[in-house]
Amino acid sequence: MGIPFQTAIRTAALIGRYQTPEIAESLLALADFLRERGVGVLVEESAVPAVLVHARNHEPASFETIGARADVAIVLGGDGTLLNAAGRLAEFGVPLTGINQGRLGFMTDIARDDMFPAMDDLLGGRFTAEPRILLDAEVLREGRCVFHSLALNDVVVRKGDIGRLIEMNVAVDGEFLHVLRADGVIVATPTGSTAYALSANGPILYPAVPGIALVPLCPHALSYRPITLSDQNRIELTLVPPNEAVVHFDGQGRFDARAGDCVRVTRSRHVATLLHPPGYSYFAMLREKLHWSAAPKH
Amino acid sequence: MGIPFQTAIRTAALIGRYQTPEIAESLLALADFLRERGVGVLVEESAVPAVLVHARNHEPASFETIGARADVAIVLGGDGTLLNAAGRLAEFGVPLTGINQGRLGFMTDIARDDMFPAMDDLLGGRFTAEPRILLDAEVLREGRCVFHSLALNDVVVRKGDIGRLIEMNVAVDGEFLHVLRADGVIVATPTGSTAYALSANGPILYPAVPGIALVPLCPHALSYRPITLSDQNRIELTLVPPNEAVVHFDGQGRFDARAGDCVRVTRSRHVATLLHPPGYSYFAMLREKLHWSAAPKH
Amino acid sequence: MGIPFQTAIRTAALIGRYQTPEIAESLLALADFLRERGVGVLVEESAVPAVLVHARNHEPASFETIGARADVAIVLGGDGTLLNAAGRLAEFGVPLTGINQGRLGFMTDIARDDMFPAMDDLLGGRFTAEPRILLDAEVLREGRCVFHSLALNDVVVRKGDIGRLIEMNVAVDGEFLHVLRADGVIVATPTGSTAYALSANGPILYPAVPGIALVPLCPHALSYRPITLSDQNRIELTLVPPNEAVVHFDGQGRFDARAGDCVRVTRSRHVATLLHPPGYSYFAMLREKLHWSAAPKH
Amino acid sequence: MGIPFQTAIRTAALIGRYQTPEIAESLLALADFLRERGVGVLVEESAVPAVLVHARNHEPASFETIGARADVAIVLGGDGTLLNAAGRLAEFGVPLTGINQGRLGFMTDIARDDMFPAMDDLLGGRFTAEPRILLDAEVLREGRCVFHSLALNDVVVRKGDIGRLIEMNVAVDGEFLHVLRADGVIVATPTGSTAYALSANGPILYPAVPGIALVPLCPHALSYRPITLSDQNRIELTLVPPNEAVVHFDGQGRFDARAGDCVRVTRSRHVATLLHPPGYSYFAMLREKLHWSAAPKH
Repeated sequence: MGIPFQTAIRTAALIGRYQTPEIAESLLALADFLRERGVGVLVEESAVPAVLVHARNHEPASFETIGARADVAIVLGGDGTLLNAAGRLAEFGVPLTGINQGRLGFMTDIARDDMFPAMDDLLGGRFTAEPRILLDAEVLREGRCVFHSLALNDVVVRKGDIGRLIEMNVAVDGEFLHVLRADGVIVATPTGSTAYALSANGPILYPAVPGIALVPLCPHALSYRPITLSDQNRIELTLVPPNEAVVHFDGQGRFDARAGDCVRVTRSRHVATLLHPPGYSYFAMLREKLHWSAAPKH
Repeated sequence: MGIPFQTAIRTAALIGRYQTPEIAESLLALADFLRERGVGVLVEESAVPAVLVHARNHEPASFETIGARADVAIVLGGDGTLLNAAGRLAEFGVPLTGINQGRLGFMTDIARDDMFPAMDDLLGGRFTAEPRILLDAEVLREGRCVFHSLALNDVVVRKGDIGRLIEMNVAVDGEFLHVLRADGVIVATPTGSTAYALSANGPILYPAVPGIALVPLCPHALSYRPITLSDQNRIELTLVPPNEAVVHFDGQGRFDARAGDCVRVTRSRHVATLLHPPGYSYFAMLREKLHWSAAPKH
Repeated sequence: MGIPFQTAIRTAALIGRYQTPEIAESLLALADFLRERGVGVLVEESAVPAVLVHARNHEPASFETIGARADVAIVLGGDGTLLNAAGRLAEFGVPLTGINQGRLGFMTDIARDDMFPAMDDLLGGRFTAEPRILLDAEVLREGRCVFHSLALNDVVVRKGDIGRLIEMNVAVDGEFLHVLRADGVIVATPTGSTAYALSANGPILYPAVPGIALVPLCPHALSYRPITLSDQNRIELTLVPPNEAVVHFDGQGRFDARAGDCVRVTRSRHVATLLHPPGYSYFAMLREKLHWSAAPKH
Repeated sequence: MGIPFQTAIRTAALIGRYQTPEIAESLLALADFLRERGVGVLVEESAVPAVLVHARNHEPASFETIGARADVAIVLGGDGTLLNAAGRLAEFGVPLTGINQGRLGFMTDIARDDMFPAMDDLLGGRFTAEPRILLDAEVLREGRCVFHSLALNDVVVRKGDIGRLIEMNVAVDGEFLHVLRADGVIVATPTGSTAYALSANGPILYPAVPGIALVPLCPHALSYRPITLSDQNRIELTLVPPNEAVVHFDGQGRFDARAGDCVRVTRSRHVATLLHPPGYSYFAMLREKLHWSAAPKH
């Protein structure tokens, strides 16, 4: 899965969520390691206290600067941290790789204990690059776009802080599909198909499948089922008045949609490029995360 | 959905399952109608008693003859009849259209009452053509192919006449995915995703999605979920000894697989081309068949 | 199902939601009909404008008055209206029957067109009475009860207006069951098992089953399943800090629960008694509402 | 859960499936242990080669003899072995306890390493007894019973070695419920609700719930759902001609049912009494077997 990633790395960005001194130390050790190998290092400014970054003569940088100058972004943390970084960097085309902090993630597939040898593999051209589709979501109000966001996992439209279901008209490429009466709906990429959508009985989509899953949340009609559309389809979810809803993007951004608003989702022209270490296997990750059987039988 | 179908039709084949004199009459009326418009007519030989075919001066023909000579195959009956015809004609590339006998099918989308005007539309170039992927399935025993079949809907590997689950190693492109312990597994195309796979909680795949769904039947592990792979993947299901299984193709053909046998499924290099009348809508069909809401709300 | 209901009816209460003049008229016609047969009539005060009630010499009454004086409560409207009335009257033990406004409900099983003959059956002792269990729910904060409610359908604990799942410790009869990480959980009676719980893949519980279903909403762990407990069990859902949640009672009442709060649910010592007309069938209702096959096959 | 079991044990029966010399040795060691404590020992005749049993001066016995003379049956093996023993001993009312061979079972809850101290607890009156309902199933052909069996887990009616679904009329207490078109149906006790029924998306029923679950296998209608009936209901599944089916009892016995046959299931007047060691917890077992979270959170 994926093609060799052999871009010469002159500048690497390090991204993490500052939580404990230990994480900061780990990130700075990685920075030192890279600089010793002649790689310029940018440290995302919220990852580590500035005073520590300066003390080591590394450079604190915004996502914009990283987007403009980095050849690769290295994320320390969980899937949530990588998800956020991917969204911020999507338009710049910076490829990402993730180092998990002890527990394997769906996307952060380098174990912390392996991070130094993994960096040698990365610099040595032994990683593979895998493109993942992104969703482009906009909220239209009376024809005008009032909100816009990208999402690597999913766009979720759901009832807010009320007890009742919501109603929306679902259209595909301008053609009416049906009126969905449900707690909400998840629009998920293959990457997102193993995240929230999976807990709502959505189908797993192998990353190479150019599809977008529409997964209802507690649909009123018992015959409703998840449907996987093509990534070439345009999906429009229009809130039937007086229904209002909350829209979430990758479980991070949010927007309060009003009655009559239309959430339009298409495949973005950007992709997120994930870099994997040698030996990476999507299926091995799936087995591990979902507790499937671990070895072939004879 | 689909592209205009404007092939000049010189020869049409009529296919049906001979069940009642009424169906035969209906088929022969269609034959007369077509010949009056200058179209040569082949009547599939099991559709209508030969004596009736000859009486009208139509030509009884085998599927091979139809494959060699027909520009289009017109199926009278339900989805099962069309499924069978699609399998028989796949290698010849003859496009198919279906006339249902009163109840809309997923694939037989012309109502019987509309069949004559629909024929005018077909001859007049107002139909659209939609390719559907086919599965190519072979059963390998000690490396040799002992059975081979195409399927438009699905390949099902399941326990036979015993009470217990079966075990199989599942591999994708030669890489181990997991050991599936279940009553069986359905390998479905987008076309088959609304058939048997749907009753096993499989995902609906829009026909334009180039995917193949793997849907387990009563899996032992509660964390197992349907997974949609790419139509470029090679799927291999190997029966762990001493497990045996029955393999079904489109619910019609069957093969008794032995312990150690491997069922290998790939996308066929053939496609089945479905022809739809003007106004056809996949979503409208879905709404109708699955009892989804019928009209947009304002 | 149920036992004959032959209580002499001296006073009947009429309950409805005032929505249109038509409904008010229909309710007043019923009031006249009953009074002509010597039955005292109380009209729930929010059902019909007071001026109309007085004009007909009927008596507007609060739920408390109805509870104290009525032998039966007749609800005009949908399941929601009956649900609300059942909750308000539960402690008084007034039996209820429901007249739907055109669409059969799970609980409002008299068609509007049949309402007059149905009243004759009711007065003539030809109805049956069926007890339905109620849930008694209290929210405990540091050991003290800060909210209390009854529910005929369900108690729902769910994340509020945020994007993330919530965590709660689930205990049964004081014994730890597990930590549920999910969007929330539905605690449903058999009556509620065909309402919201059904859209979350909960099991249908026949009303005679003395059970309480625990149905998770989008659980994080794929091996989590709905579980049906005994109606003798005490269920405690404790929000693990810092998680907060919204608690809904029959989709109508709500309470904002804080981190550390415990929602304790037991079977109430009250029951709701539903009265059914001659010919009522729970299974027929199920077939009709869920679109199951309508007639036995031979 | 359960009440103290303080019956004086004069005679114990040992039951196991003879598979390896190790299992036989383990069983004989247990026999010696019990006899040293003054307990008479019967060894089920298929558990251990007769020559070994005689060599130790124990008594080989049939299930009938065990039923007549034993105060308790101790099963060594997995859930399948206990299931079989429970069925054989049901009519005699002999309580059972199970020692697993390394992997915790749903019913075999004594670990092999703990078997000697557990025996001391059993003889010392420190076990608890828990009744589990059994199903009584008979197959009626033209009104006559042609097969009869008990089941502790489930009765499964399913299509045999064919590719198509089967049709059956489902009736409860003589009232038509619906025509089920499916691969089959599972009728499960609470004990069976964590076995095969669970893999078919059936609900978990706590053993104290007096219910019987009806769980369809791949139902044709998407709105069909599992339904839990009362253990007082009489369930009748009649095969609509020309459908035939295979009927399984606890996954062990089987019967080939013909078109028109009726499988009638009721709660048996017998119960299976399971004996549990001190510290046994149904919920702990559920957590362990289903991989639910293991400890409360604070």
